[in-house]
Amino acid sequence: MSAADPIANLQTLTRCRSVTPAEGGALAALEAMLLPLGFKVERMVATEPGMPDIENLYARLGTDAPHLMFAGHTDVVPPGDETSWSRPPFAGEIVGGELFGRGAVDMKGGIACFVAAVARHVEQHGAPKGSISFLITGDEEGPAVNGTEKLLKWAVERGETWDACLVGEPTNPDALGDMIKIGRRGSVSGKVTVFGVQGHAAYPHLADNPVRGLLPLASVLMNPPFDGGTAEFPASNLEVTSVDVGNPATNVIPAKAAFAFNIRFNDTWTADTVKAEIVRRLDAAAIGSPLRPERDPARYDITWAERPSHVFLTRNNALIASLSGAVESVTGKVPKLSTTGGTSDARFIKDYCPVVEFGLVGQTMHMIDERVALADLETLTQIYGTFISRWFDNALLS
Amino acid sequence: MSAADPIANLQTLTRCRSVTPAEGGALAALEAMLLPLGFKVERMVATEPGMPDIENLYARLGTDAPHLMFAGHTDVVPPGDETSWSRPPFAGEIVGGELFGRGAVDMKGGIACFVAAVARHVEQHGAPKGSISFLITGDEEGPAVNGTEKLLKWAVERGETWDACLVGEPTNPDALGDMIKIGRRGSVSGKVTVFGVQGHAAYPHLADNPVRGLLPLASVLMNPPFDGGTAEFPASNLEVTSVDVGNPATNVIPAKAAFAFNIRFNDTWTADTVKAEIVRRLDAAAIGSPLRPERDPARYDITWAERPSHVFLTRNNALIASLSGAVESVTGKVPKLSTTGGTSDARFIKDYCPVVEFGLVGQTMHMIDERVALADLETLTQIYGTFISRWFDNALLS
Repeated sequence: MSAADPIANLQTLTRCRSVTPAEGGALAALEAMLLPLGFKVERMVATEPGMPDIENLYARLGTDAPHLMFAGHTDVVPPGDETSWSRPPFAGEIVGGELFGRGAVDMKGGIACFVAAVARHVEQHGAPKGSISFLITGDEEGPAVNGTEKLLKWAVERGETWDACLVGEPTNPDALGDMIKIGRRGSVSGKVTVFGVQGHAAYPHLADNPVRGLLPLASVLMNPPFDGGTAEFPASNLEVTSVDVGNPATNVIPAKAAFAFNIRFNDTWTADTVKAEIVRRLDAAAIGSPLRPERDPARYDITWAERPSHVFLTRNNALIASLSGAVESVTGKVPKLSTTGGTSDARFIKDYCPVVEFGLVGQTMHMIDERVALADLETLTQIYGTFISRWFDNALLS
Repeated sequence: MSAADPIANLQTLTRCRSVTPAEGGALAALEAMLLPLGFKVERMVATEPGMPDIENLYARLGTDAPHLMFAGHTDVVPPGDETSWSRPPFAGEIVGGELFGRGAVDMKGGIACFVAAVARHVEQHGAPKGSISFLITGDEEGPAVNGTEKLLKWAVERGETWDACLVGEPTNPDALGDMIKIGRRGSVSGKVTVFGVQGHAAYPHLADNPVRGLLPLASVLMNPPFDGGTAEFPASNLEVTSVDVGNPATNVIPAKAAFAFNIRFNDTWTADTVKAEIVRRLDAAAIGSPLRPERDPARYDITWAERPSHVFLTRNNALIASLSGAVESVTGKVPKLSTTGGTSDARFIKDYCPVVEFGLVGQTMHMIDERVALADLETLTQIYGTFISRWFDNALLS
């Protein structure tokens, strides 16, 4: 059964030009792999006014508990300048033991390996002692509005429940087996606009330069640190990612100035408490800055980006142990249990069942010449297969 | 002789749409006023590669010393939204004792009054005991590359020399007679680009946010003050007029960040020493900022705007006394001798002869509904006329 070969699976998937929001044939290809294995496959199109429709896929093998979900996405980021690639980004070419292609590691590779692992499991052991499902979106690299979150709700409305989830995103910094993600920091973004009074640079007393208000506000958000980290999480960190005034005239004091920021926060905070701390710092820094002596407090507005990402930490030891043990038995390495990095769709899934993340080595993700070692595809397939066996054994024991 | 009426002169001039770089008929209209008075009028077209040609005018009455120059410009800033004007900006309409029009105070009004003053002087006293000239550019509100500076050089090459100059720019903050300008601060502009390392906002240790470098550099230029002012000058002042990163992605740390600044400096400094002080502050602030602990000094580049404006102070007591006395005798007010405000073309003229500035009330300059009180036009004409008589009397005595 060809679906047992992760390399063939990945070649098929990388040949689909599924740049968000295009399905590009990737979900159809996945469906063609899953149907022969006995999966019931459903396609769900999510819609949102003003945004492109997105195709998603949900597939389930078996009807009984325990129920293990594999989650991921077939959409990929754009390839950039295709002529800069050593091999075409949507050809699935293999050179020097590596498979080149956009999505090879993020994360068509993870899907290809999990499909192969399930195929081998079915070949060797028959149907799982419970259920395995694929929850695959086409909107992870885009706005993520028509993706995992809606697909989960759609599935729950149809009576689906899960006992655990593995997200197949690339998690390993350098080598397969380095790292499992067992949680993620939260993320909040916002924009601060500081208001002043426009005027001539030669008459500053008749104006109020908003840049003088902005500099202390932007500074106080980046220093001092929000916390020193926790047992499971690194320190929270805020970056001012842009400052924009857009005043082309050097003899004019502008009327307003704005900056954007993003904070990655650990479980010291919630999205609400971290927002409150940000406002507290801004209010304090707006008063009595040496850049604006003898002025009223700087006037500012803050707008928050929609939908903050909430911090979470998975504490399901059986799930973590199944995965960690599988990694160790195949690679000989004890993976680090980490909460570093950006957000992932696990932030939506954690509301429904415990979730962990493990996939390929992320070094080339989103880059020109994204590629994966063929050896890693085989190793990851073995890890996923071992994990499936161990997880069902653990779940049936408990 | 109609040129003796400043109101008629100004109506004629405001009806010319001479928005920089367009001549708009304004110099032709001025020429038509000056020729009957006996002036020899010449037009000089200044050119510069990549810039529009600019028409300028030089007119001289008389051939002998002493030689008094009146300097100004007939070009005006754009009217903005013409439908926002109470009266059309290029119609010269009079309503409620005020003449509306773009350039009414800045500075077609000053020209109209000086022409009227000369006309009355010639009517009453005959030709001046020396020479009077008009040095009028069409490029003061624009880049000022093809304007006063080139016109002066052109005139000098033809053997012209001057003993004193009056610039007719609006100098009075609130009422006619408030203020004579006897010098101007210098002006230096620059742009600082801070370089970092681009990266993902979730992995700040793999990136180097240039905004963390920028904030201390921008702050240190605005505080502490450069000086406390001098006997004749207000304190030097620097404004950061724009900050621009232009990063639309809140999850990305940008590669670079830039800010623009402008300093107005007094005679504590030269353009060179103030630049050196700016670089000294930047270098000091680039090291060991709390926003970038344990990092190498922030890397930055500075570029200076071309052609700084040099600070100057006129110390010609006879010239100042002639003008100040004329203001006092007509208005009863002792004008303040000031060096405040922006730069003017006086910065070019001061290299050739002593220069002072006196004109209308500047409140509506560059604004919608720029307008001048008819009474002010008559008063300014009388002041200019008294100044002409006194200056020649003084110059012939010495």
